[in-house]
Amino acid sequence: MAVSIAVLPGDGIGPEIVREAVKVLEVLNKRFDLDATWKEAGIGGAGFDASGDPYPKATRELVHASDAVLLGAVGGPQWEALDKPLRPEAGLLGIRADLGLFANYRPTKVHSQLLDASTLKPDVIDGVDILVVRELVSGIYFGQPRGIETVDGERRGYNTMAYRESEVRRIARKAFEAARLRSNKVCSVEKANVLEVSELWRSVVIELHQAEFSDVELSHMYVDNAAMQLIRNPKQFDVIVTGNLFGDILSDEASMLTGSIGMLPSASIGEQFAMYEPIHGSAPDIAGKDMANPLATILSVAMMLRFSLNRIDLAEKVEQAVEHTLDAGIRTTDLAYAGEQAVSCSAMGDAVCSAL
Amino acid sequence: MAVSIAVLPGDGIGPEIVREAVKVLEVLNKRFDLDATWKEAGIGGAGFDASGDPYPKATRELVHASDAVLLGAVGGPQWEALDKPLRPEAGLLGIRADLGLFANYRPTKVHSQLLDASTLKPDVIDGVDILVVRELVSGIYFGQPRGIETVDGERRGYNTMAYRESEVRRIARKAFEAARLRSNKVCSVEKANVLEVSELWRSVVIELHQAEFSDVELSHMYVDNAAMQLIRNPKQFDVIVTGNLFGDILSDEASMLTGSIGMLPSASIGEQFAMYEPIHGSAPDIAGKDMANPLATILSVAMMLRFSLNRIDLAEKVEQAVEHTLDAGIRTTDLAYAGEQAVSCSAMGDAVCSAL
Ligand SMILES: CC(C)[C@H](C(=O)O)[C@@H](O)C(=O)O
Ligand SMILES: CC(C)[C@H](C(=O)O)[C@@H](O)C(=O)O
Repeated sequence: MAVSIAVLPGDGIGPEIVREAVKVLEVLNKRFDLDATWKEAGIGGAGFDASGDPYPKATRELVHASDAVLLGAVGGPQWEALDKPLRPEAGLLGIRADLGLFANYRPTKVHSQLLDASTLKPDVIDGVDILVVRELVSGIYFGQPRGIETVDGERRGYNTMAYRESEVRRIARKAFEAARLRSNKVCSVEKANVLEVSELWRSVVIELHQAEFSDVELSHMYVDNAAMQLIRNPKQFDVIVTGNLFGDILSDEASMLTGSIGMLPSASIGEQFAMYEPIHGSAPDIAGKDMANPLATILSVAMMLRFSLNRIDLAEKVEQAVEHTLDAGIRTTDLAYAGEQAVSCSAMGDAVCSAL
Repeated sequence: MAVSIAVLPGDGIGPEIVREAVKVLEVLNKRFDLDATWKEAGIGGAGFDASGDPYPKATRELVHASDAVLLGAVGGPQWEALDKPLRPEAGLLGIRADLGLFANYRPTKVHSQLLDASTLKPDVIDGVDILVVRELVSGIYFGQPRGIETVDGERRGYNTMAYRESEVRRIARKAFEAARLRSNKVCSVEKANVLEVSELWRSVVIELHQAEFSDVELSHMYVDNAAMQLIRNPKQFDVIVTGNLFGDILSDEASMLTGSIGMLPSASIGEQFAMYEPIHGSAPDIAGKDMANPLATILSVAMMLRFSLNRIDLAEKVEQAVEHTLDAGIRTTDLAYAGEQAVSCSAMGDAVCSAL
């Protein structure tokens, strides 16, 4: 059965890394029995430049008609002066909200070939395998009211961090379900000693745990402590579940433990739709130079095969091809810390394709 | 001229570590010409147990009548089930707000004797010297409205992250002033690509910089990126200025870079009052065992001497005494990572006193 993929390259290095991921899809179509088709559309700055909207109508129609979305990255200095609703980030937040992608899965796994790439000591990170499950369509990113007003003759900026219990319950459920397929441990992170929104978060997580997931080991941690513990002893974590803002911060921090953010894929999943993207940004400084690392995007394709296209067999093939490529010592610039010769973005993509 | 200090030991290891800091004050009185008096009062769980209030009236009166406040730590499992306004944390937030302690200074400096204590590689942290300047009496910690309500038959928790421009301006000013006495670099951290409150924050920082501090190097960073950069390359930072919640998270993360959170003091300063405390918590698990590390509290006394009591000479003496003690290989349990023999909390205090 043919599957359709919406491909949204975006900005900066987005087009380059997505091109390599598409090469992988081509190989899977040709050499294996994946029957995928894809169409490209604009998002972020590219969307704005083409149509005046960072999440253009044509893109919206395409993604609604597709089985899965593959995104590169959005953003760049040339769009920073625009009004907030026109900026690339607004396109990203727009597609997340529009598709209801409430569950953002960000795995941080250390590739043993890259152990020395980290600024942390190898024994601290060897074996780290953390899954951050971040709530993606609510919290302070979307809370109302928000704005900048004038009070007593001065400006006041304000945002609302809010969660409803149903929103907490559905993301906590995903975290517990994911934990059951891993090491069966969930750490829920909030700031319940200060924030009411976190107090509610904690109660709902506890209620759901007692009602349906008491076989999973559950702990609670304040966000400041979690930011410390990720550095002090990252191996204590299996699944971390948290809100939109804390998830943004902690998943980026966790990714940096591995020293190779260019390796880390993500999945954003809702009731009906799913989007896959590398967790790194659009890296405008190296855009167009064919030196970006396409592996996070290629591994995002593996996540797509696993979670949206029901092709665990092909997901494993892609993951193995990436491992083989690393084993062979092939490194893009970001990974060539030990004086290895660096290959280009396209050469890295080719290497994975031949390893397939 | 006699100076008066309010001593608030608090909970957990608070009384033990404060006792050693008071020993240091005694030595400074006796052997040098510090003319300090002090009185103790309850705060946090200890305040609640004695008077039903985590920030008791008697404590409030004492601190208002004192030249400076020395705090141990608050909190513990026995008070977690209380209503939020009665919990130890409410006492801490209460005294911060009551005394208007808007500027929280959290230096993270690596002691060369303890370089190996970190989970980061020594060359990454050698020479790290970061000052986090955290806004302490506004932001989402204090923003209104807040609460848990019922909407459409389900609970909704909400908090407000808000800043007025005058609040941003006064903390940014402190950061620029601090930078001028250091490496002259300020990095302002927010999430202006998503939050209006951060957009205002950034504009006000830029305005103040242009008007009065254009000699200071200013950069801006999103909080998720800052959480990464602290691990990737902490030496890029000099002064970080940020809001209450982001400061809570990033200062804890930064402190962990050094691997010795038991070493890190802090100062919280307002227009009229100042409070000094270690950045670590009350560590209920080791409370009463005489094994805590009193050095962060002793170094908080040094900050007090410098910033509130105008005795830079004595501040330096205390700091040197701590260095001598470390040079001599004296270590509490938290620092004895390399198989050294650990001394007790009181023995560590005695060692600093004799080094004085
Ligand atoms: C670009 C930005 C709006 C986005 C976010 O904050 O969610 C990014 O940091 C991410 O984590 O995907
Ligand atoms: C105990 C808690 C309320 C407090 C805070 O969040 O400010 C603590 O974490 C700190 O950083 O001093």
